[in-house]
Amino acid sequence: MRVLGIDPGTLRMGYGVLADLNAGGGSPQPQADDYGVVALPSSMPLEQRLHQLHTHVLNMIHLFQPDAVAVEEPFVGKGERQFIGPAIAVGQAQALVLIAAASQGLPVFRYSPAQVKRAVADYGAASKEQMQRAIAVTLGLRDIPESDAADALAVGLCHLMQGQVAALLAREIPPGQER
Amino acid sequence: MRVLGIDPGTLRMGYGVLADLNAGGGSPQPQADDYGVVALPSSMPLEQRLHQLHTHVLNMIHLFQPDAVAVEEPFVGKGERQFIGPAIAVGQAQALVLIAAASQGLPVFRYSPAQVKRAVADYGAASKEQMQRAIAVTLGLRDIPESDAADALAVGLCHLMQGQVAALLAREIPPGQER
Repeated sequence: MRVLGIDPGTLRMGYGVLADLNAGGGSPQPQADDYGVVALPSSMPLEQRLHQLHTHVLNMIHLFQPDAVAVEEPFVGKGERQFIGPAIAVGQAQALVLIAAASQGLPVFRYSPAQVKRAVADYGAASKEQMQRAIAVTLGLRDIPESDAADALAVGLCHLMQGQVAALLAREIPPGQER
Repeated sequence: MRVLGIDPGTLRMGYGVLADLNAGGGSPQPQADDYGVVALPSSMPLEQRLHQLHTHVLNMIHLFQPDAVAVEEPFVGKGERQFIGPAIAVGQAQALVLIAAASQGLPVFRYSPAQVKRAVADYGAASKEQMQRAIAVTLGLRDIPESDAADALAVGLCHLMQGQVAALLAREIPPGQER
């Protein structure tokens, strides 16, 4: 089981590839195969940035052959006017990931920021620094990853853990009583 | 000069291919080579819809070989909370067009709804029906096109007319005094 986690953005996009070494069941043994941030200059036209980021996601898919793509669902404050501009950018950033995944026949899973935080740092209100540290500890990374890369690894980890929960729930059904 | 106009949407996307038969200069003689609406069911997962619409734009580019893509810049009300959800969808719908155009090396031009209306119906507050009728008359269409297709043709027409204005301005500079 391998997942490509993406923290979408139109100027900075975090990515992280996680493999679960314990695919047979039980606790996940997540390992980071690759992670980083693609940063593009704001002087680059929007369509060029979206195209480059889309190409980058396609390249990651071809290189690492993940089984799924996990992406952080955008959080947009309700009724706050300053979030409308970002909401368009968030939609653009998310779309390029969805298009890349769907074009390669990969399932896409979207998780809310609170889900991601709960999965990684045990509670939904963890700070950016707490998340970065929790990710580094969980994955045994030597250095603390950049914030956007940590977010991408976190959403990937969230997906691996969801998969584990689903597997546990499936196992609880006694044999012969499958739904 | 040929332009692919797109009215973006994640459930319904209008498209229109316009050729300017009077490429030598003077008044544009626009002709609609193709137009229509791609409508997808809301039950289809978002990533599949974005992928299909992206593929459709790529197919249109390969088929009609336009020189440019023109897209309506999203209008999003300021400070109105009900526009935040649509703002994300608008960003997603716009992104797939920008990615398709940029991946084929085509320039993208974005026009505001008011610019499009002024170009087609002479004033910026034209109703949907007035726009549809104005498009049908200008392009000599036998039937009144659907609203989304009319919007796509309108943004393409807006681009052709902008090109004419730019050409006229360029011609006003006396020879030897080029910038």
